[in-house]
Amino acid sequence: MSSPTQTFTPFDPAYDQRVRDSFANQAVMTTLGVRLTDLGPGRCELRMPFRADLTQQDGFLHAGIVTTVSDSAAGYAAYTLMPADSSVLSIEYKQNLMAPATGEVLVARGEVIRSGRTITVVVAHAFMIKDGVEKPVGLLQATMMCLANKSAS
Amino acid sequence: MSSPTQTFTPFDPAYDQRVRDSFANQAVMTTLGVRLTDLGPGRCELRMPFRADLTQQDGFLHAGIVTTVSDSAAGYAAYTLMPADSSVLSIEYKQNLMAPATGEVLVARGEVIRSGRTITVVVAHAFMIKDGVEKPVGLLQATMMCLANKSAS
Amino acid sequence: MSSPTQTFTPFDPAYDQRVRDSFANQAVMTTLGVRLTDLGPGRCELRMPFRADLTQQDGFLHAGIVTTVSDSAAGYAAYTLMPADSSVLSIEYKQNLMAPATGEVLVARGEVIRSGRTITVVVAHAFMIKDGVEKPVGLLQATMMCLANKSAS
Amino acid sequence: MSSPTQTFTPFDPAYDQRVRDSFANQAVMTTLGVRLTDLGPGRCELRMPFRADLTQQDGFLHAGIVTTVSDSAAGYAAYTLMPADSSVLSIEYKQNLMAPATGEVLVARGEVIRSGRTITVVVAHAFMIKDGVEKPVGLLQATMMCLANKSAS
Repeated sequence: MSSPTQTFTPFDPAYDQRVRDSFANQAVMTTLGVRLTDLGPGRCELRMPFRADLTQQDGFLHAGIVTTVSDSAAGYAAYTLMPADSSVLSIEYKQNLMAPATGEVLVARGEVIRSGRTITVVVAHAFMIKDGVEKPVGLLQATMMCLANKSAS
Repeated sequence: MSSPTQTFTPFDPAYDQRVRDSFANQAVMTTLGVRLTDLGPGRCELRMPFRADLTQQDGFLHAGIVTTVSDSAAGYAAYTLMPADSSVLSIEYKQNLMAPATGEVLVARGEVIRSGRTITVVVAHAFMIKDGVEKPVGLLQATMMCLANKSAS
Repeated sequence: MSSPTQTFTPFDPAYDQRVRDSFANQAVMTTLGVRLTDLGPGRCELRMPFRADLTQQDGFLHAGIVTTVSDSAAGYAAYTLMPADSSVLSIEYKQNLMAPATGEVLVARGEVIRSGRTITVVVAHAFMIKDGVEKPVGLLQATMMCLANKSAS
Repeated sequence: MSSPTQTFTPFDPAYDQRVRDSFANQAVMTTLGVRLTDLGPGRCELRMPFRADLTQQDGFLHAGIVTTVSDSAAGYAAYTLMPADSSVLSIEYKQNLMAPATGEVLVARGEVIRSGRTITVVVAHAFMIKDGVEKPVGLLQATMMCLANKSAS
C-alpha cells in the first residue's frame, strides 16, 4: 500500500550541475560538514557525520540539525524538477522526530511527492547509520516554492 | 482577538536554574553562538548573532538554523512548567518561514499555549533585528513531551 | 511576550461582502451548521453548535471537524486582506488538538500572522464553549495562497 | 529511494475486529458516508463517495473533509498496532493539499511509519478517483498517541 516511487522528467536537462552549484553556495552545509551523496530527478541525498558539538542536552544531534539537513535534501529534491532560470524557497515544513539521533552518520533523503508549477510537496526521511545499520530518526514534510526568473545563485 | 497572554504557575520553583543548566548542556547552542536572554513561566527567549557561515545559497540564515533556535526556545518554554525530575523531548514541530532571515540578530521567543501532564503545545516566533527593528521571519508550532523521572542532564 | 495583535489595512474596501459571499458558497458550512459570527481585517470567527452526528468514537467532535471549521476561519481571515479579484486556496495546515472537543458550541478564530502578496500565514484558535466558558481545544497554523485574477465565486 | 513498505506484527491478534468496532462508533463516518475498505497491520483504507454538500466555494471537497477521512485512516492504521486494552488519540497532524478534490470517490490510505509504545507516526495519502483513475489530492503526516488501559469504544 506504500506510495509507489514516481518517475519524474526534469524540465532542465542540466539540473544536476545547477543543484550542485546551489548546494555549494549553502555556507551552512560546509560549516556542518554535509555532503551531497546522491541526486536524481525528484530526489536528493545528503550525509553528515555525527559531531558532538551539534548535540542537545542528552548528547544526540539537535532536532534542528536533523531538520537543517532534511530541509536541504527536500529543497534540492524539489529543485531538480524546476526550470533552469528559477530558485527554490522553503515556505514551511513539518518535522517528526522518531528516535534519538545517535550514531556515526546522519542521512537525509528528499523525495518529491507532487511537483507543481509554483508549489512542490516533498518529504525527507532522515536516518542515523549506527554500526552499518540505518535507523529512522526523522520524517519531514515540506512545501517548496519555485521562484521563476531568478538566479539560483 | 489575539490569544491572550496566559499566566502559568510552575510546578518546580527552581525551574530557572534547571532550564539554564539544560541549555548550557546543549553543545549546539554554544557552537552556534546562541544565548538565553529571557526566561519566565511558560516562556523563553534566545538570541543568536547573524553568522555568514550559517547561511543558505542567497546569504540568508538557513531555515534549519532558524528552526534550531526556535525549537530550543519552544522546548525550554515548555520545560519551565515541567516537574523537577523530568526531561523534555521535541516530538514534532511545524515551521513557517515568512521572510528572508537577514539582519544582525536572530531572536526566537517560545511561548506555551497549552501545558498538559504529558504533552505541551508551544509556539515560537522568530524575528531578525535589522537596524534596531524586529522583523518577523518565522513561526513554529511544536509538540513537546514531558518524560517523567528522568534526569534533565 | 505574546505576539501583539496586528492592525491590517485591507486592499479591498468591500472585503466584508466578498468574504461573506464566498462563505455562503461553501456548501459544507451549511451542511455542518457553521455560521460566520465576526469578521474584520485579518480576522474571522466561525461558530458551530455541537452535533452528536459529527463525533468520533468517544463522543467528542471529530478532529477533522475541528479542522474543517478552523481552516475556513483561517482562510477567510486571510481572504479579508486579498485583492477584490482574487481567490484563496489552502496549501497546507498543521493542527494541534489540545483537549476533547466537548461542549455546546465550537468557536474558531482565524488571525493573520503575515500577509504577503502570494502567501499568507494564519493561525486559528479553536475553543469549545461549555457552561458559558471557553476551553481551548485546537491550534491550527496554515499557509494560504492568493490566486490573482480569479473569481472568488 | 522511496521508503520501503514495512511489515508490522500486531500485538493484538484480534486487532481487526477492535478497529472495525471503533470505526463503527465514529458517528461522523456514517454521517459523511465513509466506509472502511481495507485493513491490515499498520495500514487502513477508507473511501467516501463525493458529495456536493461537503464542498467549498469552488465545488471541490472542503480541505477539512479530506483531513477528516485522512485522519481516521491514519488513526486506525496506528490503532491496528496498539494493544487490545488501549485507545488511540490524534495529538496533531499536518495536511498538504495538492490538487482540487474533485471526482467520484475520495480514498485515504493510512500507513504507519514508526510505531512506538506511546507515540506512532503515520502518514495518509489521499486520492480522488475520477473516471477510474486515482489522482493524488492530499498528504497528511500525523502523530498518534496510545492511551493504555482504556476502552477503545
